[in-house]
Amino acid sequence: MLPYVFGVDIGGTAIKLGAFRTDGTLLEKWQIPTRTEDGGKNVLPDALDALRGWMARNQIGWEQVEGVGMGVPGPVKIDGTVSGCINLNWGELHLPAILHELEPAISKFRVTNDVNAATVGELWKGAASDNLSAVMVTLGTGIGCGIVADGRVMSGSEGAAGEIGHFCVDREATVPCKCGKYGCLEQYCSATGLLRCAKLALFQQASRPSSLREKKRLSAKDVCDAAREGDALALELLDELGEKLGWALTAMASTVNPEVFIIGGGLSKAGDILLQPIERSFQKYAFHAFQDTAFVLAELGNDAGIYGCAKMVLD
Amino acid sequence: MLPYVFGVDIGGTAIKLGAFRTDGTLLEKWQIPTRTEDGGKNVLPDALDALRGWMARNQIGWEQVEGVGMGVPGPVKIDGTVSGCINLNWGELHLPAILHELEPAISKFRVTNDVNAATVGELWKGAASDNLSAVMVTLGTGIGCGIVADGRVMSGSEGAAGEIGHFCVDREATVPCKCGKYGCLEQYCSATGLLRCAKLALFQQASRPSSLREKKRLSAKDVCDAAREGDALALELLDELGEKLGWALTAMASTVNPEVFIIGGGLSKAGDILLQPIERSFQKYAFHAFQDTAFVLAELGNDAGIYGCAKMVLD
Repeated sequence: MLPYVFGVDIGGTAIKLGAFRTDGTLLEKWQIPTRTEDGGKNVLPDALDALRGWMARNQIGWEQVEGVGMGVPGPVKIDGTVSGCINLNWGELHLPAILHELEPAISKFRVTNDVNAATVGELWKGAASDNLSAVMVTLGTGIGCGIVADGRVMSGSEGAAGEIGHFCVDREATVPCKCGKYGCLEQYCSATGLLRCAKLALFQQASRPSSLREKKRLSAKDVCDAAREGDALALELLDELGEKLGWALTAMASTVNPEVFIIGGGLSKAGDILLQPIERSFQKYAFHAFQDTAFVLAELGNDAGIYGCAKMVLD
Repeated sequence: MLPYVFGVDIGGTAIKLGAFRTDGTLLEKWQIPTRTEDGGKNVLPDALDALRGWMARNQIGWEQVEGVGMGVPGPVKIDGTVSGCINLNWGELHLPAILHELEPAISKFRVTNDVNAATVGELWKGAASDNLSAVMVTLGTGIGCGIVADGRVMSGSEGAAGEIGHFCVDREATVPCKCGKYGCLEQYCSATGLLRCAKLALFQQASRPSSLREKKRLSAKDVCDAAREGDALALELLDELGEKLGWALTAMASTVNPEVFIIGGGLSKAGDILLQPIERSFQKYAFHAFQDTAFVLAELGNDAGIYGCAKMVLD
């Protein structure tokens, strides 16, 4: 094994980079802006230049680098083809070929979806480091999901394994999701979804007191904070989020049977007040074979991606 | 590659065996009864004796056999440990070790859950032979499920990947499943579940005419036959089965993103009258990324297992 490895986590606004020793030590992490103009054609050259700059400063050549792992914000097939990344203005691209053309000296290249990369990171150095398989669900603007099962990152036939945000959790729903369908998990359990449900509840239960009414610009974080302070309406909102999400996760458990679920994303900063209702609902609905499945909060935050990207090269 | 390979599909009443050339030609298939007494301790020796008998008759030695693949009716971990097979009276067993002790000359041994094996079989020589990944759902007394994703059979951390029969599809249900929970998929979408729903509908809609009322001992097959002949109540029953199953399969698609769903098991003999409502519901609820997922009926019937077992050795 060569001494160095890079993790590159490409997001819509920033490219996060990590330089590691192959023993797992993070030597340096930094980020650069993502230039998404012109069909995102600068994204990969910029990332490579950033790595080359670090290598030059540290007098390291590609012959000392085990490889580069990359996470991208979109579906990635098992052969490294992305079908398109809206946030990067990318269409269909075969990343291994492009990377090889840009820098033939890279000896090993691995690429996956960004949430898959974060899942690998949490399994390696984070919340699930005692485990071999995990499903990670990130609750932010939308819902992301990464899956490591039977020791491998799952891609799916179209790179869409783990696209759980639009699983219908309410077949009677009448409010359309932005995807055009109804009752999508994201409409209830993302940060955006929680906020939507909160506003709806405040409107529908106009006479009910709640500290949420005092907020000028209500946020999902406000709901979590209010729940922690005992606000009954806020607690109910998190219960309802947990009910739907915990139940949806029983479907994922029934499919891939992970050792642990990792709850991440911005909303997960709320901690146990969020985690407990999810786990309670899971226990209520899960078949006995899955009742020992653990639930943990993500630990590595924005660094999970660079860790996971590096780890994919080492595996 | 050595010239021969065996597939051994162990069921609760019969052990099905197949002798293949490694080019995929089935040379002979046969079956022997499963002796489940004494903790099922005869099952593996009996299976081996059956293979040895075939080899003796055909003057073939183990040095000409690439390996033995086996399917068992219970969860199998990725290391070949079964956690217990109720129908065989087996507790926890590490099958590769036991097989090696019984016959050290076997050069390669593969084992998985019986429905996983059937899925591999259908992908190799059956309904999904144009595909690389599939989720197979068998509708019989219960619901079984096999998953091949990203080119590999899925096991799950406890060997319970694909245990979808007890996913809750009705959170308001009040009739308990035999598992102790409520609203399990199996209670609605297995052959047993369909029969239960049919009896309930006939009782609850006592004044409604239906040809099902003329049956002395109603069966799930009667419901499918009546639907094919245009009986409105029977058609509604299959619609409702399809509604629940198709929707549950969107959760599996969201998790592993297979190319194709294979519907098998006794109930699948009903054909398109069963398949169409499942696919219709899937299309209604599936996120756009999954709308091209194909649906096919299983083709190999009881032979799927031996084919899949043999194929696992060849992979």
